[in-house]
Amino acid sequence: MTLSRRHLLAGGTLGAGAGAVAGGLGVASLRAAPAPPDTAADFGTATVAYHGPRQSGVTTEPPAHAAFVAFTLPAGTDRRALGRMMRLLSDDAARLTRGEPALGDTDAELAVLPARLTVTFGFGPGLYRAAGVKSPVTDLPAFRVDRLGPQWSGGDLLLQICAEDPLTVTHAQRMLIKDARPFAAVRWVQRGFRRSPGVQRTGFTQRNVLGQLDGTANPTGAVLDAAVWRPDGSTTLVLRRIRAEIEKWDLLSVGDKENAVGRRMISGAPLSGTNEHDEPDFAALDGSGLPSMPEHAHVTRAHVTEPALKILRRPYNYDEAPNAAGQPDSGLIFAAYQADIVRQYLPIQQRLAEKDLLNEWITPIGSAVFAIPPGCAASGWVGEEVLS
Amino acid sequence: MTLSRRHLLAGGTLGAGAGAVAGGLGVASLRAAPAPPDTAADFGTATVAYHGPRQSGVTTEPPAHAAFVAFTLPAGTDRRALGRMMRLLSDDAARLTRGEPALGDTDAELAVLPARLTVTFGFGPGLYRAAGVKSPVTDLPAFRVDRLGPQWSGGDLLLQICAEDPLTVTHAQRMLIKDARPFAAVRWVQRGFRRSPGVQRTGFTQRNVLGQLDGTANPTGAVLDAAVWRPDGSTTLVLRRIRAEIEKWDLLSVGDKENAVGRRMISGAPLSGTNEHDEPDFAALDGSGLPSMPEHAHVTRAHVTEPALKILRRPYNYDEAPNAAGQPDSGLIFAAYQADIVRQYLPIQQRLAEKDLLNEWITPIGSAVFAIPPGCAASGWVGEEVLS
Repeated sequence: MTLSRRHLLAGGTLGAGAGAVAGGLGVASLRAAPAPPDTAADFGTATVAYHGPRQSGVTTEPPAHAAFVAFTLPAGTDRRALGRMMRLLSDDAARLTRGEPALGDTDAELAVLPARLTVTFGFGPGLYRAAGVKSPVTDLPAFRVDRLGPQWSGGDLLLQICAEDPLTVTHAQRMLIKDARPFAAVRWVQRGFRRSPGVQRTGFTQRNVLGQLDGTANPTGAVLDAAVWRPDGSTTLVLRRIRAEIEKWDLLSVGDKENAVGRRMISGAPLSGTNEHDEPDFAALDGSGLPSMPEHAHVTRAHVTEPALKILRRPYNYDEAPNAAGQPDSGLIFAAYQADIVRQYLPIQQRLAEKDLLNEWITPIGSAVFAIPPGCAASGWVGEEVLS
Repeated sequence: MTLSRRHLLAGGTLGAGAGAVAGGLGVASLRAAPAPPDTAADFGTATVAYHGPRQSGVTTEPPAHAAFVAFTLPAGTDRRALGRMMRLLSDDAARLTRGEPALGDTDAELAVLPARLTVTFGFGPGLYRAAGVKSPVTDLPAFRVDRLGPQWSGGDLLLQICAEDPLTVTHAQRMLIKDARPFAAVRWVQRGFRRSPGVQRTGFTQRNVLGQLDGTANPTGAVLDAAVWRPDGSTTLVLRRIRAEIEKWDLLSVGDKENAVGRRMISGAPLSGTNEHDEPDFAALDGSGLPSMPEHAHVTRAHVTEPALKILRRPYNYDEAPNAAGQPDSGLIFAAYQADIVRQYLPIQQRLAEKDLLNEWITPIGSAVFAIPPGCAASGWVGEEVLS
């Protein structure tokens, strides 16, 4: 994380780490002087570097708000057009993530609080076809549990726009869509959320709309790096929209919920252990001689032992308007990053689709895959290896 | 604002005022000890008192997220049923706003981070009809500029659910709807947002999706109290869904935008002044001898001099998915509180509907009015004056 010049000039302070908060003194001294509108608090001017060998927004700690925007390329799109589009969008992203207006920004005053904005570009199989280049990703096979709708599936180009602030996401999304639409049609947009900054301590697993701690098994440190990144700085994204069957979930007792998941609801501990990050023990037996970790529980089925085969879950919740009967339309925008979809994501998903107690309370309703090309230098643009 | 016991036990600190942040020392000492999931950061366990002579969520500083949920009562609903419903919902609200599960809470672990949650109840004209009581509010007349859709208009009962955290709003909304639906059907839900906590300093006017500072003219202190509250602790709410014609707005120069609004885009200063909170001077002339404040600018038309006739604007932004052509569906959930709609809101709205340069770039697409009954004591429930 870097600090914008403007923030430093304003006298603000920002500790290391995404969730750090300013000391009382810094705030007090800011308060004493008259300040213009848009004066940032602690998260407002925090930035995440856009340029670098790997794109941001992947192993970056996920901020509170995300928009996933997928585009469809019109027939006849060629590599040159794609190159022009990506030069433009990559420049927009570089500016907006610094808290500066895009070149064609029509509401420049909405650009000044980046709030850890990241813009991550994903290329679907269709973009590679249009470019005449072999795609590093292919569409997933159909799974028995899928109830996919076209309105949440597929896409030739993806923008994953994340920030701590929803108005920042809205403005970045609008500017990027404006510049993309001469080249492509909007296919779908999914908005999602996590806890607001400052609500839950950073570094702790967050809950999803079913109340589960979601992402406990995520790799960290060197294991994370090896599992997610390819040597060239690229990675891949599987994006699944998973509806939560909350009305049915509500009928379960806490014990039944825990059996379906394989973890305690409150602590997130595996049923074989006592703390959230205890490694599940699939050989442990409970008092009645049965496995502590139920054979078909979600955690048992999803578990990966080999570090290189782990995936990074970076999920966001969604919550659309309920129907007239008050039934919610809520669930998870499940974003999984891994170096290789076929070796890492696919076996997990196949095991889950085959048998997972949780399947009764979740339904995949959207699905898409994207290659995440390497990042770029300040003189370059994302996608240049493929499109220039 | 009060602090929950849990927060104090966890050793957190919270300064006075909604936006205060913990000192660095408190955070560091928290970090040293192992902590369970859901360990709150600074905004997480902050609460706003539910009980009192006036409902919260009105003159309370608006937090980042809001859900406005309107219900339709089925034919034949009587006062006794309404009393049972409000006893239940008021009890849910009292518990949830303290960070405790509702009595029938099926996901108790989602209740522990209230994040300044408020639940404000509004009664529409239809609720009073059902109760056989004269309504203190009546539907607004039609305005020339209105393009109202039934999917965003009317309602017999309103829940305004606000919190700094979107997952908290989602959970409270779900629990309240579950308990309301034996009595009423969901008519519409509007979700809105402001800046995330910690992104912009509190006490400063925020921008809307058009980039305008929105709410500069809000009354404060004793003027606010007199303008909003009736002696019995009640008030009224006008809720308008106002679509922003952003694509057309984008075509304007900054100067044309400022002429339409009557304020500078960056500073929010009236065109007759230099600072945001300068009182507009409608007699001032510019260099060419014309009024500095254009006669038909939004601020000129909306201006209210008499303190008792001011209104409290408490707006939230909305941003739904754009269409395939990339055109945004974005705007303002305009919530205006005032003691008397006819004396305060209506003359302003009539002047604006008659002539306001800004009308070319905004379109009212939803409208509803609600009486906000007084708050209640810990032994009581909201609505008891009308329904018990």
